[in-house]
Amino acid sequence: MSDDKSITMTHHLGIDAGGTSTRAVVLDSHGRALGYGRSGSGNPISAGPVVAAASLRAATAQALDGAALAGSVISTTAVAMAGGSSVTDDLTVAASIRGALLPTGVTAAVTIEKDLLALYFSGTPEADGYALVAGTGAAAVRVRGGEVEAVCDGLGWLLGDDGSGFWIGREVARAVAADLDGRGPTTALTPMLLAARNPGLTTGRAPTSSSVVRHELSSERDLRLSELVRWVYALRPVQLAQYAPLAFEAARAGHDAVAEHIVNQAGHVLAATLAAVVSPGLDGPLVVGGSVLVNQAAVRDIVSDVGPARLDGPGDHRAHRRPVVVVPDGLVGAAVLSLRNAGIRVDKTVFDTVTRSLGQLR
Amino acid sequence: MSDDKSITMTHHLGIDAGGTSTRAVVLDSHGRALGYGRSGSGNPISAGPVVAAASLRAATAQALDGAALAGSVISTTAVAMAGGSSVTDDLTVAASIRGALLPTGVTAAVTIEKDLLALYFSGTPEADGYALVAGTGAAAVRVRGGEVEAVCDGLGWLLGDDGSGFWIGREVARAVAADLDGRGPTTALTPMLLAARNPGLTTGRAPTSSSVVRHELSSERDLRLSELVRWVYALRPVQLAQYAPLAFEAARAGHDAVAEHIVNQAGHVLAATLAAVVSPGLDGPLVVGGSVLVNQAAVRDIVSDVGPARLDGPGDHRAHRRPVVVVPDGLVGAAVLSLRNAGIRVDKTVFDTVTRSLGQLR
Repeated sequence: MSDDKSITMTHHLGIDAGGTSTRAVVLDSHGRALGYGRSGSGNPISAGPVVAAASLRAATAQALDGAALAGSVISTTAVAMAGGSSVTDDLTVAASIRGALLPTGVTAAVTIEKDLLALYFSGTPEADGYALVAGTGAAAVRVRGGEVEAVCDGLGWLLGDDGSGFWIGREVARAVAADLDGRGPTTALTPMLLAARNPGLTTGRAPTSSSVVRHELSSERDLRLSELVRWVYALRPVQLAQYAPLAFEAARAGHDAVAEHIVNQAGHVLAATLAAVVSPGLDGPLVVGGSVLVNQAAVRDIVSDVGPARLDGPGDHRAHRRPVVVVPDGLVGAAVLSLRNAGIRVDKTVFDTVTRSLGQLR
Repeated sequence: MSDDKSITMTHHLGIDAGGTSTRAVVLDSHGRALGYGRSGSGNPISAGPVVAAASLRAATAQALDGAALAGSVISTTAVAMAGGSSVTDDLTVAASIRGALLPTGVTAAVTIEKDLLALYFSGTPEADGYALVAGTGAAAVRVRGGEVEAVCDGLGWLLGDDGSGFWIGREVARAVAADLDGRGPTTALTPMLLAARNPGLTTGRAPTSSSVVRHELSSERDLRLSELVRWVYALRPVQLAQYAPLAFEAARAGHDAVAEHIVNQAGHVLAATLAAVVSPGLDGPLVVGGSVLVNQAAVRDIVSDVGPARLDGPGDHRAHRRPVVVVPDGLVGAAVLSLRNAGIRVDKTVFDTVTRSLGQLR
């Protein structure tokens, strides 16, 4: 690596466009992060195309500002994004993102990259390995030769996302409903969920209703149950993900079998998702991300306890464990993919440069 | 009982207003059904107030026509309906139903009755007992002294309805997704569900998409999985209930552990819902209804195997089973409640008259 930028130095933009926030980084061709930007939701499906485009533009403008570079110097742009099921979809999205970035001066071609591939390359420069994410949703990928070879789950809240924040939050809400309803065991999750509810929707309801409720709803427990019903059905289902942390809190506090069971099950279903993409012949690191796996060592431990046994393959009885790398998001990987799109080989040296220099900027 | 109508004969209207169809019956004060009518959805929440009012009016007009009676002779009207959580709600709904029925000449006061109480009285005239329903939703009630004393579940698809048609249909869809995704076992439900899908949404998709799909979606299995995702998320979640019969079909055919597990679990969670309302001190029949319990002897058997053991109470080791009465809907009960609202005592003789005479009309 050299500081002489005069001969081969080019500049590259990596964007991690998430449902909650968007992150952008401008790098040189050695992998040095020169500028970083962050803005709101960049997912056109969840935030709408206008908001998503504005987020991408804002994060990019910040990153260029930080690098003190004009957008015109950018030669490749990679955008990591969930969704997109066909090449034609991606081409359409890429064209619209290119349009959205024009005010920043960036005119380079845009490639759309799978968010799980960017997550994977946020943890390792190795061409072969696995990634598992459990945030609001959940999915696993097998990466071979730097490309996604197999995907498991990521099927959304109704059909899949087993072990995701939504899955856990839904289990919490159902366990509380069953407790209040007399069908399920008593759990500490009940007072915790009722305390965590949006106070605006429930304050003063019980006194107002108590004079008119039917006699089968007259007990305190039934009042709380009918409040829970009103309140949960006023949410979009995926918003139940916000209550996932209650399960971890109650499980950590101990003595709550219901919460412990939910956390344990989440780990096991995530391990099953990972196991479904594992190929005995493909060795490599496991990169994990998403709030459930980043913040909850309990779930991560179950996955790494259960997962590697499968990762080693049926004929391999060595007790070694594959390294598990925890990453906060997919920004490093978006940067890696942007460099790769420029034909730059991202070896361990370049990868470490990206990781270290980006770490200093944010 | 006498055929002399001149002295005390009055006339009564019972309506069972369901989400799919509405049924009405006109009776005399001996419980003789004189006219029957049937129309579309009478539930203002699912069908909207205008459609629901029109359904109630149409079914009532048909029943009056069949009885060759003017609406003005009706002295009491009972409407069995899901929902309604407070007396004030019921008064509002009752007033609007009364307005809807005015064109039929019916001017009598309207009472709103819980659909589960009407279901219960469709199976028995006894004042104490239990009812369990599993249709699109699922719930149980304990009836004491002719009134609902306790309710369990009926909390809707997201929080409860364990063992309902939605619950079973969702398990079917998730099992098929897990099978196609390589996370779950192979099941006969997969070809069955794919064959049962709406052909209009999927015909010709695979050939059209095959030229542009990414390489990880290039296998036949992945194509079917992405079709399933598109198709299921285009439904309202409760519409998954339409696929519940596939679980029963596959379980009956044998050798499908996945389908057998779903059916078995449905029976057990319904038994738990029933157990939650059982009071050891309250004896009486168990009335069951809803498509899952009416059509699926397998589920009914699990409920009656598991349920009565709990029904007998902890101190009662006799092997006797409480009678299980299967009813097609809540119309007989709506009629019973309309008679009761007129002060008419509905004993076994009157009850049998209602059941027999209504059976001859429809």
